[in-house]
Amino acid sequence: MPLLVMKFGGTSVGDLDRIKNAAQKVKREVERGYDVIVIVSAMSGKTNELVGWVEQTSPLFDAREYDAVVSSGENVTAGLMALTLQEMDIPARSWQGWQVPLKTTSAHSAARIESIPRDNLDAKFGEGMRVAVIAGFQGISPEGRITTLGRGGSDTTAVAFAAAFDAERCDIYTDVDGVYTTDPRISDKARKLDRIAFEEMLELASLGAKVLQTRSVELAMRYKVKLRVLSSFEDTDENSGTLVCDEEDIVEQNVVSGVAYQRDEAKMTLISVADRPGIAAAIFGPLAEAGVNVDMIVQNISEDGRTDMTFSCPVNQVARASEALTKAKDAGSINFHELVADTDVAKVSVVGIGMRSHAGVASQMFEALSRENINIRVITTSEIKISVLIDRKYMELAVQALHDTFGLEKA
Amino acid sequence: MPLLVMKFGGTSVGDLDRIKNAAQKVKREVERGYDVIVIVSAMSGKTNELVGWVEQTSPLFDAREYDAVVSSGENVTAGLMALTLQEMDIPARSWQGWQVPLKTTSAHSAARIESIPRDNLDAKFGEGMRVAVIAGFQGISPEGRITTLGRGGSDTTAVAFAAAFDAERCDIYTDVDGVYTTDPRISDKARKLDRIAFEEMLELASLGAKVLQTRSVELAMRYKVKLRVLSSFEDTDENSGTLVCDEEDIVEQNVVSGVAYQRDEAKMTLISVADRPGIAAAIFGPLAEAGVNVDMIVQNISEDGRTDMTFSCPVNQVARASEALTKAKDAGSINFHELVADTDVAKVSVVGIGMRSHAGVASQMFEALSRENINIRVITTSEIKISVLIDRKYMELAVQALHDTFGLEKA
Repeated sequence: MPLLVMKFGGTSVGDLDRIKNAAQKVKREVERGYDVIVIVSAMSGKTNELVGWVEQTSPLFDAREYDAVVSSGENVTAGLMALTLQEMDIPARSWQGWQVPLKTTSAHSAARIESIPRDNLDAKFGEGMRVAVIAGFQGISPEGRITTLGRGGSDTTAVAFAAAFDAERCDIYTDVDGVYTTDPRISDKARKLDRIAFEEMLELASLGAKVLQTRSVELAMRYKVKLRVLSSFEDTDENSGTLVCDEEDIVEQNVVSGVAYQRDEAKMTLISVADRPGIAAAIFGPLAEAGVNVDMIVQNISEDGRTDMTFSCPVNQVARASEALTKAKDAGSINFHELVADTDVAKVSVVGIGMRSHAGVASQMFEALSRENINIRVITTSEIKISVLIDRKYMELAVQALHDTFGLEKA
Repeated sequence: MPLLVMKFGGTSVGDLDRIKNAAQKVKREVERGYDVIVIVSAMSGKTNELVGWVEQTSPLFDAREYDAVVSSGENVTAGLMALTLQEMDIPARSWQGWQVPLKTTSAHSAARIESIPRDNLDAKFGEGMRVAVIAGFQGISPEGRITTLGRGGSDTTAVAFAAAFDAERCDIYTDVDGVYTTDPRISDKARKLDRIAFEEMLELASLGAKVLQTRSVELAMRYKVKLRVLSSFEDTDENSGTLVCDEEDIVEQNVVSGVAYQRDEAKMTLISVADRPGIAAAIFGPLAEAGVNVDMIVQNISEDGRTDMTFSCPVNQVARASEALTKAKDAGSINFHELVADTDVAKVSVVGIGMRSHAGVASQMFEALSRENINIRVITTSEIKISVLIDRKYMELAVQALHDTFGLEKA
């Protein structure tokens, strides 16, 4: 039987009525003849509550315990979704990550999927099960402990299942009806895109557009998974939402496709680092080991053999980063005078594959920010995006100004 | 190293501060030189919330999905408790039922413990772990699915671990400071017992005294586990709380030790059942299969080959019981005119091992209820208890009257 993967995010399963609504969408596909693998997130707010408890209990928490706690929200939704489908006379059952098993690395709270053996689910599909409901975001480590895939990991779960089970399509149901030129909550001129290139989606996701987790897009690109983002709160058909696809499938392309932001960033600066070959590795190695997601990195011009090193990371990893760097200093592997953390910054980026063939996007961007008197703290660029770190209070203003400057309200 | 089992109920881990308070009690025992196995319930209210969602989703729920959903509350507390202990520099980690593994039967939502292999925990204790925090109430079936042990199952988890690991003691920390002659919320004359016999505790537990789950007391009796009930909200020492012990260890004994009640009972009557040998089995077999906990059973005198059969069960199992009986009728294995459910009854009982050697307790009880104009619907008796089913609205009144009648406020 052909197979679909359908993923429902937190707001799509936020209460029992919404779970029922999502189940109706699953039922429709079953009636069309599909076997379905449903991936569910925790009810909206639940994961934040659990993360809050962990952080209050232990600021430098044991990530293995974090995972054990935080994964529980998805277990609840998976069971409730299976029960809802059963009430509609659809043969369904729930699976937690370790039951599938969805095997991951041991990198707790940011584990990577290693494999999804098909045997268990295939056996049940063979016995007449029509829907397997999977608790998203979680897996099991080689040591037999529960792992999680990082925030938004349910998207990655969905794409990984779609790849492993050769799904015809992977539909990501969410609280928006597609991918927008920017967050409509920030600019009312935001416009829905019918199609977006994998590469652009990748940048938007990694830049905090919050529609899809980065790794899910990477995976979809690698395994050629047909990925669609659509609304769980509207009637949808084959043409709804936004299709994430190859660059060549997009006919008309603006130079800039979207403006993304990441609100909760922190800027950390190591002041007066002894500059020598290997110093970057000595700094960022321990950070990686501590699980800090370093994003932008800027090194100042060296003077008298010393330099300043600046990087950005999520605000909630500042304590962890400080600890890792202080340890490395105590161990003598790095040397710096001071570590300064600015936790009041945000990142704003413009993204577009059209930038490859158009010059002047950067200067247009900087001028627009300058007109609004927004000071740029850090700049980084790639082939298809330009990002700046600015004071958090100017974030919304910057997004709106850039959306206007690049004329994104028009297709 | 000597080992203790400490169990903390839902109110004892109701928020982060209370978890910290419970962890302090664990720390004290670790400092005294004990290895500790901590069993935790879900935060108070959480399990009810989850059960509510399941019942709203599917009144005749698939018990396997019920278990998958409802067990998640304990996972949260176990992780948070491990983190709290780690913050106190105590080597601790959490274990979910399937990780231990705590092996159970496949009787979902009321599974029985089959075995607790010691290898995994012993290995970690051998490596220096001082506290194993176990998510109570849950296990794993031979089919690899999550099971739960029934409400209050964390007590049973605690006693089973105490037996499996030869614990010196099993301390049940709860929101009361011991076992009382009756529920202090119903009678302000209720008095704490220093000791109570296993047999009495067994009756009190099964009668809804809510301090300990029945099976935990059975298990403790069978494996001679030193079981103590004490408060998590007071400073406690070796003599705190109530010791549940053998009958011979109790010196002074009242005829009646306590008055228990069960609020949410239902009385179901099969009217005009064809009376023939084997009819009771034909009725109660399907009920047992459907997982209905039938309690009291009364059969009327037979007339013209037909009789009425009355039984009681928890109110929330009435739908399930009706379905099972209607199915059996449709299948022709039983025959009755009508099935009547009265969901407004409660059970009140007096319990005491002294009743074995004293006559007249029953008549004293019935007179006391008569004086209050409380009509008795059903009566059952055993060697050490007498139970009556009455209208729910008279429950508190009945408990108070019986507590007075048997002079339970005095030791």
